[in-house]
Amino acid sequence: MATIQKEISLVAKPRGFHLITDEILEKVPEISQAKYGILHIFIKHTSAGLTINENADPSVRRDFETHFNRMVPEDMSMFEHTLEGPDDMTSHIKSSILGHSVTIPITNGRPNLGTWQGIYLCEHRNRGGSRKIVLTLMY
Amino acid sequence: MATIQKEISLVAKPRGFHLITDEILEKVPEISQAKYGILHIFIKHTSAGLTINENADPSVRRDFETHFNRMVPEDMSMFEHTLEGPDDMTSHIKSSILGHSVTIPITNGRPNLGTWQGIYLCEHRNRGGSRKIVLTLMY
Amino acid sequence: MATIQKEISLVAKPRGFHLITDEILEKVPEISQAKYGILHIFIKHTSAGLTINENADPSVRRDFETHFNRMVPEDMSMFEHTLEGPDDMTSHIKSSILGHSVTIPITNGRPNLGTWQGIYLCEHRNRGGSRKIVLTLMY
Repeated sequence: MATIQKEISLVAKPRGFHLITDEILEKVPEISQAKYGILHIFIKHTSAGLTINENADPSVRRDFETHFNRMVPEDMSMFEHTLEGPDDMTSHIKSSILGHSVTIPITNGRPNLGTWQGIYLCEHRNRGGSRKIVLTLMY
Repeated sequence: MATIQKEISLVAKPRGFHLITDEILEKVPEISQAKYGILHIFIKHTSAGLTINENADPSVRRDFETHFNRMVPEDMSMFEHTLEGPDDMTSHIKSSILGHSVTIPITNGRPNLGTWQGIYLCEHRNRGGSRKIVLTLMY
Repeated sequence: MATIQKEISLVAKPRGFHLITDEILEKVPEISQAKYGILHIFIKHTSAGLTINENADPSVRRDFETHFNRMVPEDMSMFEHTLEGPDDMTSHIKSSILGHSVTIPITNGRPNLGTWQGIYLCEHRNRGGSRKIVLTLMY
């Protein structure tokens, strides 16, 4: 068995949900060597998250933003930790609801995602900047 | 170390939360060979999820359905992505909140779950059909 | 490659969100031997969870408690599974939203977390007691 690990930086993205499948996978061409394994994708931040969801219709990503803004409202009277503005504490909460890592199976040298599955960066800050990701391939 | 991987199809289930621990584990008898390891369980869909929760009282699974229907309401006026009906976009959102994979420890040839823990299929669609799962055992 | 696994018990904590990074990591000094790998941290309970979030300002943990109590209200009229009181069913739901495991990358003998990331125990019960955790290091 082998372990391959890389740390990468994503291009900065505006607030919202973004499909990053290609931006991730092109960084680990070693996947083609793995018959069976897993790829662990980890974001090193507490105000952005990672998830897997629909990879075709951009309205799904917009609806995610709509829903999460309603479910975790930017009501500063609710929170103590508001120094960086109304998107500060809500970003921490959203990132823990969605999660800081996804792990996907690798099969016959390819990511074994469903037809409609893609990897999302969930950028919750108004100005999040570039985000660091650690990729660990084990096979 | 060894990696064993299988892709399986679950029997189609109605909308709601379903205990699938046995349906999963009977497909990987190789767990008995693993002294220490992990089992990664991944669902290849974007409108159903996987989680771990209480394995004894069926009312817990019904209460999950009640809560998630309230927390992610089927209000089509909220969403753009509604072509397949009111359970379309909400299913995408619920699946990302609950997650698309669970990873459990394997110890001395057995899944090392707590006494009350079971694996749930979270079926969010009214007619989701059979669901594909990839199981990766690493030890 | 190697797999090291341990089961530990956390000191009992009051309801709320608690930073447990040090309490976890001091139990796996073998991390120092791992050039590249992952550490899987799994909680064997259905009424407490694990997540990663901000490790510096205690008000973030208090705001998590505030938000989750609002998002998953202790309204017993909503639920069937209420035998153990108003914090029973809500604890099950909160734990599945936040998740039962976190997996972190290990790099050059150290956990490769972001500057502001720490591991949280999410204790949802009023009297949860000591919690059991399984740690699996693979490298």
